[in-house]
Amino acid sequence: MNFASDNAAGIAPEILAGIARANDGKVLAYGRDPWTKEIEGRLAEMFEREVAVFLVATGTAANAIAIAHLTPPWGAVLCHEDSHIATDECGAPEFFGGGIKLITMPGKAGKIAPSELRKALERDWAAPHHVTPSVLSVSQATEAGTIYRPRELCELAEMVRPHGIAIHMDGARLGNALARMNVSPADATWRAGVDVLSFGATKGGALACEAIIFFDPARARHMPERRKRAGHLVSKHRFVAAQLAAYCGDGLWLRLARHANDMADRLSARLYKAGVPPIWPVEANEVFVALPTHMDERLRSAGAIYGQWRTNGEDLGLARDTRLVRLVTSFATTAAEVDSFTAILDAGC
Amino acid sequence: MNFASDNAAGIAPEILAGIARANDGKVLAYGRDPWTKEIEGRLAEMFEREVAVFLVATGTAANAIAIAHLTPPWGAVLCHEDSHIATDECGAPEFFGGGIKLITMPGKAGKIAPSELRKALERDWAAPHHVTPSVLSVSQATEAGTIYRPRELCELAEMVRPHGIAIHMDGARLGNALARMNVSPADATWRAGVDVLSFGATKGGALACEAIIFFDPARARHMPERRKRAGHLVSKHRFVAAQLAAYCGDGLWLRLARHANDMADRLSARLYKAGVPPIWPVEANEVFVALPTHMDERLRSAGAIYGQWRTNGEDLGLARDTRLVRLVTSFATTAAEVDSFTAILDAGC
Amino acid sequence: MNFASDNAAGIAPEILAGIARANDGKVLAYGRDPWTKEIEGRLAEMFEREVAVFLVATGTAANAIAIAHLTPPWGAVLCHEDSHIATDECGAPEFFGGGIKLITMPGKAGKIAPSELRKALERDWAAPHHVTPSVLSVSQATEAGTIYRPRELCELAEMVRPHGIAIHMDGARLGNALARMNVSPADATWRAGVDVLSFGATKGGALACEAIIFFDPARARHMPERRKRAGHLVSKHRFVAAQLAAYCGDGLWLRLARHANDMADRLSARLYKAGVPPIWPVEANEVFVALPTHMDERLRSAGAIYGQWRTNGEDLGLARDTRLVRLVTSFATTAAEVDSFTAILDAGC
Amino acid sequence: MNFASDNAAGIAPEILAGIARANDGKVLAYGRDPWTKEIEGRLAEMFEREVAVFLVATGTAANAIAIAHLTPPWGAVLCHEDSHIATDECGAPEFFGGGIKLITMPGKAGKIAPSELRKALERDWAAPHHVTPSVLSVSQATEAGTIYRPRELCELAEMVRPHGIAIHMDGARLGNALARMNVSPADATWRAGVDVLSFGATKGGALACEAIIFFDPARARHMPERRKRAGHLVSKHRFVAAQLAAYCGDGLWLRLARHANDMADRLSARLYKAGVPPIWPVEANEVFVALPTHMDERLRSAGAIYGQWRTNGEDLGLARDTRLVRLVTSFATTAAEVDSFTAILDAGC
Repeated sequence: MNFASDNAAGIAPEILAGIARANDGKVLAYGRDPWTKEIEGRLAEMFEREVAVFLVATGTAANAIAIAHLTPPWGAVLCHEDSHIATDECGAPEFFGGGIKLITMPGKAGKIAPSELRKALERDWAAPHHVTPSVLSVSQATEAGTIYRPRELCELAEMVRPHGIAIHMDGARLGNALARMNVSPADATWRAGVDVLSFGATKGGALACEAIIFFDPARARHMPERRKRAGHLVSKHRFVAAQLAAYCGDGLWLRLARHANDMADRLSARLYKAGVPPIWPVEANEVFVALPTHMDERLRSAGAIYGQWRTNGEDLGLARDTRLVRLVTSFATTAAEVDSFTAILDAGC
Repeated sequence: MNFASDNAAGIAPEILAGIARANDGKVLAYGRDPWTKEIEGRLAEMFEREVAVFLVATGTAANAIAIAHLTPPWGAVLCHEDSHIATDECGAPEFFGGGIKLITMPGKAGKIAPSELRKALERDWAAPHHVTPSVLSVSQATEAGTIYRPRELCELAEMVRPHGIAIHMDGARLGNALARMNVSPADATWRAGVDVLSFGATKGGALACEAIIFFDPARARHMPERRKRAGHLVSKHRFVAAQLAAYCGDGLWLRLARHANDMADRLSARLYKAGVPPIWPVEANEVFVALPTHMDERLRSAGAIYGQWRTNGEDLGLARDTRLVRLVTSFATTAAEVDSFTAILDAGC
Repeated sequence: MNFASDNAAGIAPEILAGIARANDGKVLAYGRDPWTKEIEGRLAEMFEREVAVFLVATGTAANAIAIAHLTPPWGAVLCHEDSHIATDECGAPEFFGGGIKLITMPGKAGKIAPSELRKALERDWAAPHHVTPSVLSVSQATEAGTIYRPRELCELAEMVRPHGIAIHMDGARLGNALARMNVSPADATWRAGVDVLSFGATKGGALACEAIIFFDPARARHMPERRKRAGHLVSKHRFVAAQLAAYCGDGLWLRLARHANDMADRLSARLYKAGVPPIWPVEANEVFVALPTHMDERLRSAGAIYGQWRTNGEDLGLARDTRLVRLVTSFATTAAEVDSFTAILDAGC
Repeated sequence: MNFASDNAAGIAPEILAGIARANDGKVLAYGRDPWTKEIEGRLAEMFEREVAVFLVATGTAANAIAIAHLTPPWGAVLCHEDSHIATDECGAPEFFGGGIKLITMPGKAGKIAPSELRKALERDWAAPHHVTPSVLSVSQATEAGTIYRPRELCELAEMVRPHGIAIHMDGARLGNALARMNVSPADATWRAGVDVLSFGATKGGALACEAIIFFDPARARHMPERRKRAGHLVSKHRFVAAQLAAYCGDGLWLRLARHANDMADRLSARLYKAGVPPIWPVEANEVFVALPTHMDERLRSAGAIYGQWRTNGEDLGLARDTRLVRLVTSFATTAAEVDSFTAILDAGC
C-alpha cells in the first residue's frame, strides 16, 4: 500500500523491454542514433506538427532548462504558488535561469485563477527597475491532481499573449490529464497556447525520461548547448529515446495513465463512502483528503505509505484533528492495494 | 517642487567639500588609502564594536552583495512583499546569489508582521527538495516610510534565530529612522539582532556611497573577492570613503536626516489640514497619500513632481477617484517648497 | 568496427539484469530505497573508508557538481589543457561554479607535468584582483589514454596541498586505469591525495550512472541541495543505484575494463606491425595514431567508425599527410572487430 | 614619486568642477536628467555615429557587463593572456556572463598576435560539446602599454568576422592610445571593427566613470536591465554624466592623456640613459623595465612607489638579478617627479 508518489513505482514492463531491445550493437553517442531520430519523428506525428525535442533524465531538469530558455535573467515566471517549479525543485529554475524570479499566484485546487493572473499582469513591471514577466508556467495535471481544460488554458493564454509572455507546461503527469479528457495531445498543448512542454514519462512508467518539446523549433536554437552544459545530455542517449518510444508507442502512455486514474477514482469513491471525501476534484492520479488523526494513525500502523500535504496559501478550512494527506496512484497500483487501504478505513468506523 | 525621490537631490555641500579635500596627492588605489582606513575606524566607533566595512556605489549593490554573502544558492530570503530588494532591483539579489529565492510576506505599512513571518517559517522547507530560509531582510525605514522599533526587530530576530537565519537590514534610509527614534546606531542594528547592514549615504546626501557593514567581521571572509568580481570595488576608493567620512563626521548624517524628516512632518501636517491625511504613519521622510484625481492633476500641472505608488498586496481600501502617490523629502527640501506644494492643494478646495 | 567512443557500446548484460532485478515493488523515491543504501555501503567497503556518495546520470554532471562544491565562485580549477572538463563539457564547470575559471596547463600525453603545475602555482594569485586556485582536477585515465601512477598523483598532491587546493579526479575511465595497474581503489584515489572522485560507470558498461564520491563526508554538506537544484536527483533512484551495484559487484567493473584494455592492446600491437604505432603509451582503452591519409580513407570507406583528434597545445610533430585519430575500445569490443580493422590496414600496404 | 598606477592620482580639477556644477537643484534620478542626455549626444558626435551609452562606476563593471551582453553563457571570449579581463578582475566576466569561458592567447608586448588568433579560431569548437567563441576582446592601450594601430585591429577584425564574433575593446586607457596616434575616436574603434567599447575616464582623471558604448544601438537592447540588476545604475546619475561631460568637453581627455604620455616618454628617455631601457615600446603611459635588484631597492628606500610585474606566458629573457617593474604615469604626474625618480637611478651608478 504505497501511495507516496507515482515515482515509487518501478518501470513498466513494456518500457524495460524497450530498453533491452535498444541494447543491440554500437551506435554513436549523444543522440546521433536511430532510436533518437525515430522518437523525434514519432512525437512530431503525435503532436501533429514539427517539434524540437530534447530528452533529459529528470522532470526538474526538463522544467528548469525549458524555462531558462524562454526567459532572460531579468525575466519573471508567473506560476501557481503550489507549483512544482516553485516549491519542489530547490530553486532549479532560478539557478538555470541565471537568477530569474518566480512570481507565484494563489488559486483554488492548484489551478491559476484568471483573476489572479490579471492582477499579476497589472502590477508595475516597468524596466529596468522591475523584472519583466516572460513566462507563464502551468502544471498539467496540477499539483492538486486537477486538470486545466483546453478552453481554460486558452483563456490564460489570451491574457498573457499581448504581453509577449511565453507559456510553459509542466506535463510531468500530462498522460493522466489526457487520459481523463477526450482531447488530442495537440489540442491540450500548442493549440491551447503552450509554447514549450515538459513531457514527462518517468512518473508514467519510464525509468528516467522526460522530453522538452518546443512547438516552434526555431525557438529551440542553442538548446543543445544549454542542455550539454547542464550535464543533461545523456551519452548513451538511445536508452532514453527507447524509453520514450515504448511509452508513446501503441498508446501505452495513455493506457498506463488511464489505469492510474482508474485507481484514483476507485480510491476516491471508497473515501467518499468512508465519509472522508477528497477535498479537490479527483481528475488525475492524485487524491487529497483530510484524514481524521486516528484514521491517519491507523492506516500508517497498518503499513500504508503516503505523505502529508501542505499548501502555501489556500485556506482549506480543514476540521480540527484532521491531517491533509496525498495519495498517489500509478500504473503499478492494483485494485487490491486500494481495497486493502480502504478496508482499514472502514474497519475503524 | 520635486518630491519624486531623495535621489533627486544633489550632494550635500559638506560631502562635496569632503571629496574635494580628499583630492590631494597620490595614494594607493582600491582602498589601501588613509581615508578608507579612517572611515573604517569611525564606523567601528559609531557602532560600538569591531566591524568589517565594504564601500560600494549603489544601494542595490550593497543589498545584493550583502545578501549573496549570507546565503548559499539554495537559500531563501524572507522579506516584505513591497521591499526594495523584492520589487525595485530587477532581480539583483537573485543574480548575485546564484539563483536564490526571495520569499515575500505581506504586512501593513511596509512592515513584516510577526504573524506572517511565523507562517513563513512554518512552511515545509525540508531539503533537498525545498530551498532553505537563510536570511531575513528588513528595510529601515521601510518602503512605506515607517520604522521598526528595536523591540520589533528583536521580536523578529527571536523568531528566526532558532532557524539559523541571518538578519540583513536595508538601511538606505537608516539616518531617517535613527533621527526619528532616540536610539544609538548600535541599538538600532546589531543589538536588535542585525548581522549585516546596508548603510546608505546616497539618499541622505552623498554622491554615490553605501557601506556594507558586517557586525561579525569573521563572517565577511571573502567579501573582497565577491565585491571585486561584481565590479564594485571603486579604484579611486578614497573618494567613496571621503563621502562617508563627511557624512558620518560631526553628526552630519543625522542632521540631514532630521531636516528631511521635518519637511515630511510639515508636509504631512498640511495634508491633514487639506483633508488628505497620509495613509501610513509618517515616520521618516516619505509621505503617502491618496490624492483625489483632480488634486493630483492640479498639482502636476502646477509643476509638482512625484510618483504614483502601488503596493503588491496590501488592500488599502482607497476611495474611488483617488490616486496613491508618494512624496519624498530630502536634506535639500525647503520649507518654501513644501508650502508652495500645499498652497496649490488649498487653493483648489 | 565502431571505435568512436566507449559510449557507443550498449549496456553490459549484467548491469541490464541488475536494473531488471531492481524493478520489483514500490519503494520511496529520490534515494530513500534499499538499493541506494546498499551501494553506499558497498562503495565504502571498496574504498576502505567512510564516503559520501551522490549518484547522477552523466559524467559532465558528476564533474561539474563535484567541482562546484569544492570551489567558491572566485576560485580557479587547475587542469590539463586537453581535459574533458576544459574542452568537452561546454562550460559546465563554469556554469555550476557560478563563473569559476579553469586554468589550463600543457603536459605531454594528457598528463599534467609537475613543472607546469609549479609554474601555475607560482603565478600572482593575490586576492581580490585575482581568482584563487581552489581545485586541481586530474583525469584517470587521461584524455590521451594514459595513466597517473599513485606516486605521480602524490607528487602533484604534495605541490598543491600547502596552497589549500583540493584534488578532484575525473574517473570516467577509472576502471581502465585500475585494471592496468596493480593497485587498490583506495591507493589510486584518496591515499594518493584525491578528495573527490567522479567515479564513472557509463563508459564502463552502465546505462547512465556516475557516482560523485567524497572521501571526507563532512565536505559533502549541502551536496543534496546542489544536486537537486541541478536537476540531477533521479527520482526512481533505485535504478541508478542498481546499475552501480551490478557494476561494482563481484569485480565486474574491473573485468569489463580489463577486456577493453586488452582490446586496446591488441589494436595497438597490430598498429605497430602495420607501421603506424600509437603516438602515446596505450595504458587504458584508447589508442591514438597518426594515420596516413590514404589509410584513414580506406578504413572509413570500409565502414570503420572513429573520430579525428586534436590537441590544444601539444606539438606532436606529426608527419604531413597524416591524420591523428582516436580509437576507443570498450567492454563490447570483440577481437574480431579489432582484427577486421587491422586487416584493412594490412591489406592496403 | 608614485608610479603605482594611474588610479593613484586624484580627480582632474576640471572634472571636480564639473561635478560641482551639476550639483544644482533637483533632477530625476537614474539617468533621466539633462546631464545624461547631454553626454549621450556629445559621445555620438565624438564617435561620429549614433551610439547607445551606459555609464558605470568601474572599469571592471564596464568590461564584464559589456562582454556578458555580447555572449551567451556557452560562449567564449578570446583575449590576451595578460589582459585585464583575464587576470585582474577576479572572474567578473565569468560571473556576469553566467559561466562563460575566457580563452587566452599569448602575444608579445600585450598584443594579440594574428597567428595566435588564427590558431585559436581553428580549434575544434563544434557545439554542443564545446563552447563557441563569441567575443574577441582587445585592450587599447594594452596592459603592456602598447597600442594597436587601426590597421592591426582591422586585421584581427577580418579574421573573426566570418565566425560571427563580436569585438569588444577595453578602453580603460583609450585616451592614452588616441593621444599617441593621429586618428579620430571613430577610426580607432568602430571603423576598425569594434562593436562595443569600454570607454574609461577614471584612469584618465575622473572620480569614477566609465562608459559602455554600443556602436550599434540595437545590440544594446535590455542593457538597462542588465546594468540595473548588476547594481551598476548609479542613482544620482547626473554626477557620473557630469564627469564624462567634463572629461570629453573641450578635448580635456586628450590633453590629460597627452600629458601622461609625455611623462612616460620622459621617464623612458631617462631610463635609456641610465642603461635600463624599457622592455616594451612606450606607447601610452606605462613603462616596463627590468631593474637590477640594487636599483629597485635604492628606489624603494628613497620612497618611490611602483609595482612589480609578472606576465603569464611571455618569456622575456630577463637578466638575473633584475626585477620587472611597471611605472605608470598619469595626468597628475609632474616632470619633477620623473626627474627625482631618475636622479636616484643615476646617483646609484
